[in-house]
Amino acid sequence: MSLPKRVTLIEVGPREGCQFEGIGDPTRIPTAAKVQLIDALAATGVAAIQMVSFVSPKQVPQMADAEMVCAGITPRPGVTYSGIYLNDAGLKRALQAGVIEISGKISFTASEAFSLRNQRRTHVEDAVMQRKIAALYQQAHIPITHGNIMAAFGCNFEGEIPLARVLDYIAELHEIAAETGSTLRSTSLADTMGWADPEMIRRTVGEVRNRWPDLRLTLHLHDTRALAIANVYAALLEGVTDFDTAVGGLGGCPFAGIQGAAGNVCTEEVVFLCRQLGIETGIDLAAMVQCARLAQEIVGHPLPSKLINANLDLPR
Amino acid sequence: MSLPKRVTLIEVGPREGCQFEGIGDPTRIPTAAKVQLIDALAATGVAAIQMVSFVSPKQVPQMADAEMVCAGITPRPGVTYSGIYLNDAGLKRALQAGVIEISGKISFTASEAFSLRNQRRTHVEDAVMQRKIAALYQQAHIPITHGNIMAAFGCNFEGEIPLARVLDYIAELHEIAAETGSTLRSTSLADTMGWADPEMIRRTVGEVRNRWPDLRLTLHLHDTRALAIANVYAALLEGVTDFDTAVGGLGGCPFAGIQGAAGNVCTEEVVFLCRQLGIETGIDLAAMVQCARLAQEIVGHPLPSKLINANLDLPR
Repeated sequence: MSLPKRVTLIEVGPREGCQFEGIGDPTRIPTAAKVQLIDALAATGVAAIQMVSFVSPKQVPQMADAEMVCAGITPRPGVTYSGIYLNDAGLKRALQAGVIEISGKISFTASEAFSLRNQRRTHVEDAVMQRKIAALYQQAHIPITHGNIMAAFGCNFEGEIPLARVLDYIAELHEIAAETGSTLRSTSLADTMGWADPEMIRRTVGEVRNRWPDLRLTLHLHDTRALAIANVYAALLEGVTDFDTAVGGLGGCPFAGIQGAAGNVCTEEVVFLCRQLGIETGIDLAAMVQCARLAQEIVGHPLPSKLINANLDLPR
Repeated sequence: MSLPKRVTLIEVGPREGCQFEGIGDPTRIPTAAKVQLIDALAATGVAAIQMVSFVSPKQVPQMADAEMVCAGITPRPGVTYSGIYLNDAGLKRALQAGVIEISGKISFTASEAFSLRNQRRTHVEDAVMQRKIAALYQQAHIPITHGNIMAAFGCNFEGEIPLARVLDYIAELHEIAAETGSTLRSTSLADTMGWADPEMIRRTVGEVRNRWPDLRLTLHLHDTRALAIANVYAALLEGVTDFDTAVGGLGGCPFAGIQGAAGNVCTEEVVFLCRQLGIETGIDLAAMVQCARLAQEIVGHPLPSKLINANLDLPR
């Protein structure tokens, strides 16, 4: 397998970062700052921006302004704006938010312990919820094309996740899609708590691809235990072309049980890696580093990105 | 090529870190703190510790206490203690320091611009110096077994370094060793300014190995541009078994022209990567993370290591 010629990055910093940074102080990142960051990101050449979560304002008050953020941005042609939701109420809000592009997406969590904390549902309850969401998509004439497995590589509460379970859950997502007459085209594997290592990535990607050769894979990687950029390289070696990344390395999961841990794999570091490997991202590296500096200003503390302080303006 | 079963890490944090942290304030890291860190590192299971530089106290006053550090530590059986030197005067000091294990080592810098800044010598002048050092080794009956190429992957002042030049300089080091009747057994390639990327690592290691199949390679990687851990993974894929690493990600090069840049690849992160990949390091990960916390206390500011804040005490 050779390295891909082009990859697509989905910028998840606004959603992940503002969700994490607002823990305990929901208005710390003002709506206007979120809008400013999203508009700046849209100008870097990034293809897609995950902006907000449509989740309970009681559980996650820092995302209570999701609709205001959607109304505030200046949509840029060619950029896809998305949001996440964990239940049917969230999907309904997303459908009404206007700028949000809804792709039919259903999701499982590979760790039951984490599912109970994050979604407050067992896997069996989650299957019921995903069918409810599937029915809503059907009503809205949106085909279900995308699957998602959270905590696909390990869990702080449950430990290692058997690959067989990940495969079973992807199969189950395929079944739910099929029940509505849809076919999954792509699936995300999320390393929600930073458990993946490069060989695990290669083994998992290989197995998923063996079983579903046409299924496009997206990786959502966290850098909690410092291996995220090595994991991206391993995934590139396996031909993976789609990654969620966060500007500045924003992020962290409020329900993962660790304070002070690193966030998502850093967008500008992945862009830099790709540039070095001759892989096109469509993103202007200098503009993305500027966005990371803006994000750092907004959150008011140093972000994990090493490129914020590195001098990239050097002789080639 | 499959992953190696075992790797050897040379802990360079005390030398790199104390050298870098002391810029502008040479006594900021007291001798006693250096000794404390070195003794703690020796208890982690690490095979070798690079403790000090025997360099001009005028140019690098923070290393003026090199002899005191050597006298202060409690040598631990099974641990090799080393120091670096850039000229014959430095080698003479190292030979007299007692605890320092001297291996016959000669060195070139692949960037002329950096050589002038760091060693204050052109390559031609450096070849004269290396022969002078070689003669000293010969007098001391120390065979010259180790070569070193600094700035082997790129230079902040000169840009990319042609691989052909690196190969030429390794060949020249072989010649100098041969003139004294010695044979180089190993060579370090140092990414002094953080220019390497994973494919560059693989190409370089591959070419060096093609030409000198029996030459053992050590990589000395900096994380200035965030790719160090991916570079270690790439090197492991090529079967490299020897790495210089720095606890906590200490380090940085005083003459590389960038402030605030990240240091060496982080020891505990490499140990963790190896643990995940089933590669033995002989190092107790928890003890090394404790050393990183000690190093962070000593320098008095956050170090780049992500594992300092990650919870490694999780279900497996």
